[in-house]
Amino acid sequence: MTEERVEFRVSPDRYKHWRGSCDSPVATLVMDVDEQGGLVPGYELKLNSYDLGVDIELYHAVQRLRFEHPEVRTVVITSGKPKIFCAGANIRMLAASAHGWKVNFCKFTNETRNGIEDATASSGQTYLAAVNGTASGGGYELALACEHIMLVDDRSSAVSLPELPLLGVLPGTGGLTRVVDKRHVRRDLADYFATRPEGVGGKKAVQWRLADEAVPRPRWDETVAERAAELAGRSGRPEGAAGVVLTPLGKTRDDDAISYQHVAARLDRDAGRVDITVRGPASDPPADMAEATGHGARFWPLAVTRELDDLILDLRTNETELGTWVFRTEGDPGRVLAYDDLLLASAEDWFANEVLHYLKRTLRRLDVTSRSLIAVIEPGSCFAGSLLELALAADRSFQLAGVFEAADPNTGDPDAEPAAITLGDINVGPLTMSNGLTRLQTRFWGDEAGYEAAGKRRGVALEAEDAADLGLITFAPDDIDWDEEIRIATEERASFSPDALTGLEANYRFAGPETMETKIFGRLSAWQNWIFNRPNASGPDGALRRFGTGQRAVFDRKRV
Amino acid sequence: MTEERVEFRVSPDRYKHWRGSCDSPVATLVMDVDEQGGLVPGYELKLNSYDLGVDIELYHAVQRLRFEHPEVRTVVITSGKPKIFCAGANIRMLAASAHGWKVNFCKFTNETRNGIEDATASSGQTYLAAVNGTASGGGYELALACEHIMLVDDRSSAVSLPELPLLGVLPGTGGLTRVVDKRHVRRDLADYFATRPEGVGGKKAVQWRLADEAVPRPRWDETVAERAAELAGRSGRPEGAAGVVLTPLGKTRDDDAISYQHVAARLDRDAGRVDITVRGPASDPPADMAEATGHGARFWPLAVTRELDDLILDLRTNETELGTWVFRTEGDPGRVLAYDDLLLASAEDWFANEVLHYLKRTLRRLDVTSRSLIAVIEPGSCFAGSLLELALAADRSFQLAGVFEAADPNTGDPDAEPAAITLGDINVGPLTMSNGLTRLQTRFWGDEAGYEAAGKRRGVALEAEDAADLGLITFAPDDIDWDEEIRIATEERASFSPDALTGLEANYRFAGPETMETKIFGRLSAWQNWIFNRPNASGPDGALRRFGTGQRAVFDRKRV
Repeated sequence: MTEERVEFRVSPDRYKHWRGSCDSPVATLVMDVDEQGGLVPGYELKLNSYDLGVDIELYHAVQRLRFEHPEVRTVVITSGKPKIFCAGANIRMLAASAHGWKVNFCKFTNETRNGIEDATASSGQTYLAAVNGTASGGGYELALACEHIMLVDDRSSAVSLPELPLLGVLPGTGGLTRVVDKRHVRRDLADYFATRPEGVGGKKAVQWRLADEAVPRPRWDETVAERAAELAGRSGRPEGAAGVVLTPLGKTRDDDAISYQHVAARLDRDAGRVDITVRGPASDPPADMAEATGHGARFWPLAVTRELDDLILDLRTNETELGTWVFRTEGDPGRVLAYDDLLLASAEDWFANEVLHYLKRTLRRLDVTSRSLIAVIEPGSCFAGSLLELALAADRSFQLAGVFEAADPNTGDPDAEPAAITLGDINVGPLTMSNGLTRLQTRFWGDEAGYEAAGKRRGVALEAEDAADLGLITFAPDDIDWDEEIRIATEERASFSPDALTGLEANYRFAGPETMETKIFGRLSAWQNWIFNRPNASGPDGALRRFGTGQRAVFDRKRV
Repeated sequence: MTEERVEFRVSPDRYKHWRGSCDSPVATLVMDVDEQGGLVPGYELKLNSYDLGVDIELYHAVQRLRFEHPEVRTVVITSGKPKIFCAGANIRMLAASAHGWKVNFCKFTNETRNGIEDATASSGQTYLAAVNGTASGGGYELALACEHIMLVDDRSSAVSLPELPLLGVLPGTGGLTRVVDKRHVRRDLADYFATRPEGVGGKKAVQWRLADEAVPRPRWDETVAERAAELAGRSGRPEGAAGVVLTPLGKTRDDDAISYQHVAARLDRDAGRVDITVRGPASDPPADMAEATGHGARFWPLAVTRELDDLILDLRTNETELGTWVFRTEGDPGRVLAYDDLLLASAEDWFANEVLHYLKRTLRRLDVTSRSLIAVIEPGSCFAGSLLELALAADRSFQLAGVFEAADPNTGDPDAEPAAITLGDINVGPLTMSNGLTRLQTRFWGDEAGYEAAGKRRGVALEAEDAADLGLITFAPDDIDWDEEIRIATEERASFSPDALTGLEANYRFAGPETMETKIFGRLSAWQNWIFNRPNASGPDGALRRFGTGQRAVFDRKRV
């Protein structure tokens, strides 16, 4: 869609589409989209419709509320436009976008909405949708991500999911799933609702569970304030704590490399591969979370997570032809575990809680990334605890058995120590995947004995043979085979159909239970991707392309 | 692909591809595909590869084993070809098929495999895959549907899923899901396995859990027999019971109508609609299951289920442009409930058990059918118990409030009684959906009070207002609005994008928990459908089209 790279780092003073205000314990995010402020040319963001740029700001704002505002307990999302809450994703943008852009855009939108639910569930920041005008399509889907939906009862405002009748696509950013699985709207009513472009308003919306309450305009402001205060009362957020400012993220970026302080990536376009190195902490952790809070955004676990997060988003959006990501780590595994232990021991601390959940969300972003993930575990690496999750998230891992021939123990060469991985308490704890299980549980799904055997070795540095025996890594080649095996694995990956790989990975990565989140990424998104790719939606005569032209779509009527 | 209609009724004496033999309690199904016996011209079924015709025979054989052979406790599936068990779906057939054909073919294949698992789980007929040669792709997926997989250990036979590396598609008929979710193969090994066209054989296949045992050829026959006998020992199938022969199904079929004894369908091509009428039993049920068994295939619940099953398959495959199915029933609801009660009271009886599970599977077939389902409940109908499931399976239902004006009570017109629906015990029992819940539980997912309120009215004939209040139907128009409302609903349905409807329905129909079966139909199939539709697989230079030409596929390398 655009040759310019999309930038995910934004600064609040440059927000175009959102205004924040804070009257603690309640913050308000006002969506007031700048029609002319689209991320790329070619469309106007009318009626509070959104594109990726609007969503990037929302993501940023949600993150800031969690870290910079420990005093905020309720976040009200509302509209700055009269009579319209949000009209959803901009249709002209969607119609003009390539298939891959649409899919990536929807994925990010889903992640941001899941993040809103995570703030409500894990952070004591409850989101309230103050739907002060019509919310249609993605606009209603945004409201659905909030814990409580208030709809103004004024005989014109309604909530709707008009994607199917108007555009021939699905309410695919969580809408269908949240309607039946979160809000428990009865399926036949949900069906009717999704075929009714004008939507449902007032008391009927409440009766059908599409909204939690319908409030007449005269009592609107007062009732929203009342409800926001009530929701705030449920929160365990601290009183009087100072926030941690998410200072601008330092980054250098050119065609071949992306560098941050703790994370670096080399982009190999010929090989279709990115080599990513994550560096462990350069020093021991602070004594306690008070000191850690003093470190602010420099606190290693937060800093490295922010960098990883930005890197994933950058590569996913801007480097679609680099299909394999190879992860390495460098540093002292003991220090990684020490940082992990500080966080785990401080679960009551709001900042430790935020860092852990942010790391959880970032690793989940990796899980749903449509790239092959390979972990390469070499001497000098620090795949321990939280950083071991990178290897557990990978589709395959390679750990060197022994050392490289060239390593010289006499010079104190760190590569003279065999590569090891170390399971920590964090690997059996809070860093759950979308399916509700840890990566370790998912790995050993149906193999309780294997899971227990691995768990017993927590804290032990496991060299390749042990790690392979325990089932924690895939392959353990020695120096003689090492380069060749990794070369073959990455070259082979680059030779396969990118689509088939995406499908394979999306199925294998989520063994075991399904949750609303995995349903959204697995079932709903997969169907939406299929529909986006079909002529009935995206062909020249398809509904998405013909919307607004006055011409009806022409459908191939065959049911598939 | 073909202008001729596909026929799902086959006769064992005309099987082209399978041979059955029975040495009770063990039956053996030998796959020995006739290369020249493809369902449509244009490909040869080499190496025991299959097309829809091969799978229709397998489905038929599996059904017959359940009904005609109560004495069979183990079913061995093996190959009649040397060195090859089964090479999976025929590639030339897939490459030449339209998108819709591929998707429908995979769906039926999935259903047959789920039926094999259902026989093992619910019927005491345990399937054993005696993999006496290489099983690749769909061939291995067939083995995966069996409870126990024996692989001949001869240094050449292997199991493999070569779809991704060779064809650029997924092992999409259950393969990916069953590997990690049923057999608990570790995800990184599963990933490696699915990229290795030559597969994995011998002890490694067992180590990785891809097979249960690897047996050298000299001990093969003896070990298969031993294992089959062991598995038979687990079964609760009756001794000495006579089977029920699935006599040929009477059917008339032309362009406008399909008729059976209890089921009739009118095909309205202009409206894109099928009107289906299911008739209740013409007489009271037999006194007990002994008498019912004497009725054989004429026993109403079995007869009506067979007819429905055939109708669903016929319409799904041959009438893809008829996107809406409207269900009506006719008859005495009391008799339907009486038949249900006989079955429920006879759960220990093998035949009652088979009939109930067959009805369960047929209703599940309806749930995964990509057609809009509408139930129309009128005076004279018998939406009670098992037949009420048709309304509960529907995306929407309409029940007439009151009677039609034209009905005349003085003449004993049955239409002079208001339409009613009746919940029976069968609706809270054995007829579970793929998600493991009943349709009633799914309908009230997250609404325990609604579920209980409805359940309390079991056995009560509920007129429209009551049924609507209880949430059992969608709409209750009266005579004045009736025709108009149904006309609008069906016309509107016909105006929407068929693809978007399919996606909508596939998401809404399965609220609540996911199971291996819903994962296969929801997640795996959706991704496969997407991939089937992408140029990287199905375009002129795609992997599926180029397979066997000596030319490599050309991929758009962008990851989506």
